[in-house]
Amino acid sequence: MTEASIEPFDAVDVIRIKRDGGAVPEAELRWMVDAYTRGYVADAQMAAFAMATLLNGMQRDEIRVMTDAMIASGERMSFTGLGKPTVDKHSTGGVGDKITLPLAPLVASFGVAVPQLSGRGLGHTGGTLDKLESIPGWRAALSNAEMTAQLRDVGAVICAAGSGLAPADKKLYALRDVTGTVEAIPLIASSIMSKKIAEGTDSLVLDVKFGSGAFMRDVDRARELARTMVALGTDSGVATTALLTNMDTPLGRAIGNANEVRESVEVLAGGGPADVVELTIALAREMLALAGQRDADVEAALADGRAMDSWRAMILAQGGDPDAELPAPRETHTVTAPRAGIVTRMEALPFGIAAWRLGAGRARAEDPVIHAAGIDLHVKPGDSVASGAPLFTLSAQDAARFPRALDALENAWEIGEAEVSRTPLVLERITA
Amino acid sequence: MTEASIEPFDAVDVIRIKRDGGAVPEAELRWMVDAYTRGYVADAQMAAFAMATLLNGMQRDEIRVMTDAMIASGERMSFTGLGKPTVDKHSTGGVGDKITLPLAPLVASFGVAVPQLSGRGLGHTGGTLDKLESIPGWRAALSNAEMTAQLRDVGAVICAAGSGLAPADKKLYALRDVTGTVEAIPLIASSIMSKKIAEGTDSLVLDVKFGSGAFMRDVDRARELARTMVALGTDSGVATTALLTNMDTPLGRAIGNANEVRESVEVLAGGGPADVVELTIALAREMLALAGQRDADVEAALADGRAMDSWRAMILAQGGDPDAELPAPRETHTVTAPRAGIVTRMEALPFGIAAWRLGAGRARAEDPVIHAAGIDLHVKPGDSVASGAPLFTLSAQDAARFPRALDALENAWEIGEAEVSRTPLVLERITA
Repeated sequence: MTEASIEPFDAVDVIRIKRDGGAVPEAELRWMVDAYTRGYVADAQMAAFAMATLLNGMQRDEIRVMTDAMIASGERMSFTGLGKPTVDKHSTGGVGDKITLPLAPLVASFGVAVPQLSGRGLGHTGGTLDKLESIPGWRAALSNAEMTAQLRDVGAVICAAGSGLAPADKKLYALRDVTGTVEAIPLIASSIMSKKIAEGTDSLVLDVKFGSGAFMRDVDRARELARTMVALGTDSGVATTALLTNMDTPLGRAIGNANEVRESVEVLAGGGPADVVELTIALAREMLALAGQRDADVEAALADGRAMDSWRAMILAQGGDPDAELPAPRETHTVTAPRAGIVTRMEALPFGIAAWRLGAGRARAEDPVIHAAGIDLHVKPGDSVASGAPLFTLSAQDAARFPRALDALENAWEIGEAEVSRTPLVLERITA
Repeated sequence: MTEASIEPFDAVDVIRIKRDGGAVPEAELRWMVDAYTRGYVADAQMAAFAMATLLNGMQRDEIRVMTDAMIASGERMSFTGLGKPTVDKHSTGGVGDKITLPLAPLVASFGVAVPQLSGRGLGHTGGTLDKLESIPGWRAALSNAEMTAQLRDVGAVICAAGSGLAPADKKLYALRDVTGTVEAIPLIASSIMSKKIAEGTDSLVLDVKFGSGAFMRDVDRARELARTMVALGTDSGVATTALLTNMDTPLGRAIGNANEVRESVEVLAGGGPADVVELTIALAREMLALAGQRDADVEAALADGRAMDSWRAMILAQGGDPDAELPAPRETHTVTAPRAGIVTRMEALPFGIAAWRLGAGRARAEDPVIHAAGIDLHVKPGDSVASGAPLFTLSAQDAARFPRALDALENAWEIGEAEVSRTPLVLERITA
């Protein structure tokens, strides 16, 4: 009925299958991703498909095929020549989430390779690379050869993902961002996992966050995403587990870039805030278990300096000076308690937005971040405060940034009479 | 959080409302249609919105606003100066549906103005303008002034809709066509009704077809579409009723262009196939009732030549010669009954496709149609046939067209022992 085409399928037919609640057969789904990457399937067609996927879902097998097709759109790395197991961690992002910084060297100190391809921040959640770039001399861009050498010699690498990994995902993510289809769980899962699988890791631990400062506010949706990704990793030959963790309140006391590096170094020195230590240890145990070291004494490696040695080697290998002074802010503004009582609430999202407005985050991908900008919490929910005691300090290079940051914090915290019960930081462990 | 924009809304926010099952407020919906027409909202964004609308629906008020926004994108005609009521008919399209041809002059013979803006065929359903262009000299394109003059002097006009009516609909329809979102009832209803309301008719009768040869195969979906459009017309100040009519078998005996004009003239001369006469009369009664003539003797106007006089005046006014010979085919091919029995089935869709393949329809909007091509049925379902009796005759300008047309008809008809019960042609009447 139409002109002959060398394309084996018609995008409208594929869209209709998903629209009508069906499962798209493997060949059609692979073609759809490939043809979209080639530009044969139009943005409008992929947008309609993404919306149908958001509303009608995908079966486990479809998600696997979708992910595999995105991996096939680019290069695939391999670390099989290293002679040691590789294990990676991915967090869905939160406020004050610097866990990768202490975690990667800690796990590497047990002789495991940790190839941690990371990104930059956009919006209210920070980016691991932005944080590390607070360290003078440190560089995020490594060649594949440099990365392999560092994995062999040091064990831990935190670097920028090359643009060659899953280019289909890059194109699809940009489309989802402008078409209200970011929230589709099958597409979130395949976007995250395509890059992690293409990276060639043997195993993967996911930190899937829920709550006010998380991408998924709702715990049930976070659990669904975690289960979807664990199934996907497993189906693709990557041993995968997930922790479902709370993100109602900022993680640790530092929100920003340089201050998060400082806090990470505290953890590596055997100190640091209890919640950061708890999550670092929990994730390290999961990663080491997947790498075959179920009984590793993670606390000891933090206490005896092995993790710190690993950190210093990792920073040095990427040109950074682990002893250099980190950027300090020109201006600070401290908010104090208007009355005595117990801190009952410090909400992650507004603190994330405030730090962003201070310059710690970027509004557009091409903007720089200000490494010295951010927020330091002097108290955490559950702490008692006296009237006039400092609650948190804002840092910026320009005092003109404070008013809008303070606006975001207007209803972000509360001082009450009695402590409210808190949900545990690690709510659930999800395995295949 | 983003750069200041002169646009009052963000397309992603509007998409999210519909995605999450909400009703889009009036200002946002008007902006979405207007900004899409201006090119500020991208095709991909409108495609995601259309898919969300298909899957989550729209409330009655949203459909009214959507329609009104599409009308506001272009010119709006008015026939208030005519001094007589205007009434229009719209069919959702079927195989052998030539009803507009006898209907418009029949209704006009009662002193009512019938401004029938029509289209050309695409796919297996024919276009009213294509059929009338079989008549030597007849022209479809009229200026607004010519149209008004003809409505005043003759009463009936069948002509091409100008491109100035609802341009937003034109853009949106083309997008829906390639994104699997044609089937969204709120969008079908607003597409049809925006053009009919912009045309400025006082009242409107809808012929909403269901069955094998119809756009809506399912009677429940056809009923939902009919109710949606009747509500929409009523809400927009156009008195609207609908008939739900069967399109399982072709309407009448002629499928094509010139042969459908011949059949229409038979009806205007007081003869013609029973089903075409029945539907013409039923629709004429509805139109005249809306125009205030509830007791008009429609049969008399067909029997005594008044409708024929009106037809001849209408054709002459647009340059056509009502007495001219119509194009005849060079080649014909007749299919005969392989055995005696009763015709139990002649399915509309394959007969429509066969006529299309013979050249009666076009595959691309820019193709010409072959006026002499088509199919003439010698029997209809329920008729008895002797072995060897002619069932139907295919007509074409080139015998090479026959094999593919016959392929389409392979399982399209059946001769059995006993007549099967048939659904009535007019199933239901739907009013506000």
